[in-house]
Amino acid sequence: MADPIEFWFDFTSPYGYLASERIEAVAERHGRELVWRPVLLGAIFKTTGGAPLTEAPMKGPYSLHDFARSAREHGIAFAQPATFPVGAVAAKRAVVHVRGDAALADRTAALVHATYRAYFVEGRDITDVETVLDLAAGVGVDRDALRAALGDRAVKDALRVEVETALERGVFGSPTMALGDELFWGNDRVDMLDRWLERGGW
Amino acid sequence: MADPIEFWFDFTSPYGYLASERIEAVAERHGRELVWRPVLLGAIFKTTGGAPLTEAPMKGPYSLHDFARSAREHGIAFAQPATFPVGAVAAKRAVVHVRGDAALADRTAALVHATYRAYFVEGRDITDVETVLDLAAGVGVDRDALRAALGDRAVKDALRVEVETALERGVFGSPTMALGDELFWGNDRVDMLDRWLERGGW
Repeated sequence: MADPIEFWFDFTSPYGYLASERIEAVAERHGRELVWRPVLLGAIFKTTGGAPLTEAPMKGPYSLHDFARSAREHGIAFAQPATFPVGAVAAKRAVVHVRGDAALADRTAALVHATYRAYFVEGRDITDVETVLDLAAGVGVDRDALRAALGDRAVKDALRVEVETALERGVFGSPTMALGDELFWGNDRVDMLDRWLERGGW
Repeated sequence: MADPIEFWFDFTSPYGYLASERIEAVAERHGRELVWRPVLLGAIFKTTGGAPLTEAPMKGPYSLHDFARSAREHGIAFAQPATFPVGAVAAKRAVVHVRGDAALADRTAALVHATYRAYFVEGRDITDVETVLDLAAGVGVDRDALRAALGDRAVKDALRVEVETALERGVFGSPTMALGDELFWGNDRVDMLDRWLERGGW
């Protein structure tokens, strides 16, 4: 069976958001399953010494300009949030929970999109648990059941495992698309992944 | 008159090398002049706190893999040099001198290509002045005249001005392609620049 496309991302990542709006078309075109895998970039950066792009001298202003430019190119709505970066741990736990529940798993993509758009289009506070529950309810996830799940040890552990797995697999940034061991890092690489699948690698 | 494409680069930059092999086709397609502008990434990194990609945890191994993968995609010969990174100040002074001499300026592109290929294909020591003179002689630049020029105060100053100008313009990495104030950073962005010129921006 063909490898799925694993889409590793953080909700605070502008390029992750942009890629999230484009990756499904690539997966569909090549008949690949898509797996949404949230990580905590803050935890990864502790291991790698990485830092948010926007905080780097010179690279910061360039990045802010490029987020908006890259969005415009693809006709994706985008507004840099005033509060940035954010951890949004509950939002990520919600994704892991929904993805892991057979009855809810088909809502995972919708929840990811709703959360990303809430942050990068509407400027909502996705670190707020009530907002997370609202977004989940909007895609058909029961609010009270999710509220309980967000406190579950198993759900917390599941997100921790995502981060550990990311580090083991060599994922150091968002978005990173993995096809087996082959990693494609960055929004720019959505196109490369598309060509890779088209040509069967090179 | 239309802005030229300024191609800011360091000879130690693998992505700069890959982009250098692709940028002329873009400039020709859109009828733009191409200006080769060497910088000292080491000096820029002192200002920005940047570091060579290959030295970053996790990002290092990914980058080494990606240099070769990106080269293969475009059919560009590439071998990661054993000695890396390098300063190659004399090689950059040679470019600035040749570019600034009306009788030699049309050899600039050939000298850039010869130097990049010597390093990233043949693994030659481009920090060695004799190698620089050999490469320049190979594209029709008088060896002895260049040897003298490399010691000239004016040539040294000209390279220093390149670096200062880069920092003033917001150039923090290699390659950076500038179209007026619009910067495109990275080999991935050769394609974006191409589309930008095609559409007249967006």
